[in-house]
Amino acid sequence: MKKTLGIIGGVGPLATMFIGEMIVRRTKASKDQEHVHTIIDNDTTIPDRTAYILDQTNENPVPYLQRDTQKLASVGADIICIPCNTAHTFFHEMQEVSPVPVLHMIRETAKRASELGAKRVGILATDGTLAANVYQAALQEMDIEPVIASVHIQKQVMSVIYDYVKAGKEVTPEQWQPIEDAMLGLDCDRIILGCTELSIVNKELKLGERYIDSLIVLAEVAITACGYELNN
Amino acid sequence: MKKTLGIIGGVGPLATMFIGEMIVRRTKASKDQEHVHTIIDNDTTIPDRTAYILDQTNENPVPYLQRDTQKLASVGADIICIPCNTAHTFFHEMQEVSPVPVLHMIRETAKRASELGAKRVGILATDGTLAANVYQAALQEMDIEPVIASVHIQKQVMSVIYDYVKAGKEVTPEQWQPIEDAMLGLDCDRIILGCTELSIVNKELKLGERYIDSLIVLAEVAITACGYELNN
Repeated sequence: MKKTLGIIGGVGPLATMFIGEMIVRRTKASKDQEHVHTIIDNDTTIPDRTAYILDQTNENPVPYLQRDTQKLASVGADIICIPCNTAHTFFHEMQEVSPVPVLHMIRETAKRASELGAKRVGILATDGTLAANVYQAALQEMDIEPVIASVHIQKQVMSVIYDYVKAGKEVTPEQWQPIEDAMLGLDCDRIILGCTELSIVNKELKLGERYIDSLIVLAEVAITACGYELNN
Repeated sequence: MKKTLGIIGGVGPLATMFIGEMIVRRTKASKDQEHVHTIIDNDTTIPDRTAYILDQTNENPVPYLQRDTQKLASVGADIICIPCNTAHTFFHEMQEVSPVPVLHMIRETAKRASELGAKRVGILATDGTLAANVYQAALQEMDIEPVIASVHIQKQVMSVIYDYVKAGKEVTPEQWQPIEDAMLGLDCDRIILGCTELSIVNKELKLGERYIDSLIVLAEVAITACGYELNN
């Protein structure tokens, strides 16, 4: 029996459309009717996740995330995913109110790192995701050593996410190179793109096999969880 | 007051994600919260529209389209659009049951052709869309002469749509050229891409200014109808 996928989107909007496209492109299908039935709430009213994690006087995104989880289940979603690493800080609160399973992007990405035999893995993510410790914990559970960028490089990562991708500006290879060099200088054998805006950078710059793209991992896990096959 | 857009998708799935991306990229916004709140039902259970128009013993897509219209309105869509030209054959049936306005992709595309000063416009679309006469009628209402491809070229257009784009295969410039040459040979001053799968071809091959892409027109109309500005 095929299942319907619900996607809590808008966090951010471009990454939402990108995972939607990725699910279509990675599904083994030869006509419309063989693709995953997906319901996407590209809910741009959800407040900024990182802003709330770092300063809880900002608006709390949890009630929005809970409402969207229930809304998607009410219109037929059998499985829910949320293509925003930072929002996984509130995974427990979403799963708690959800009548259907919620996929855990971060645990699935850590599992993929383990399957690839990684031992020391860099995490490129928002300040919020790093502060919430979700990736570090998921990697450590898989006996993988998590590696965080220096304060200086982390600032560059945040600028790429907020000043460029979320603002609709393109990132150049020259702008990315110092980030890659710094992470490899920390002896990482793999680098997780743990923010969906960085998956947009990967799509545009084709960053290569050293990287584990959390959005692509989530797309692939979602396709198989809904009972469809991956192409090739 | 900003409005929420509902998109009846799955017809086809890749075009659905493409209009989603186009709406994000064409909206003037510098952060997540400034983008259009969009709810997309990528409903891959909707039966093939052309198959039904050409042979009504095939399953009727109308009850699906009507159900999705109502479902989207029930979860908050203030305006609905459907990124499938062929489905506009059933526009009246959708608008009839919809508690909110449904945008008319084909009339909007014909209006764009008129704004561009076109006099003789080629229509590249499915056999179903052409048989339903929707584009021809919309253009004639604008005093524009509609031009249809020869039977031989129309077969190539259908092959591009079904055997390539819907099947996830890439179309080459060499494959497209005879179609363009044939339409220009018929003295068209513009060519409408009146099938969302052809918008995917446009995205990949960058077909140029001679073409009016119905999916891009719909994205732009939807953004402004929801109270947002276009970036340029």
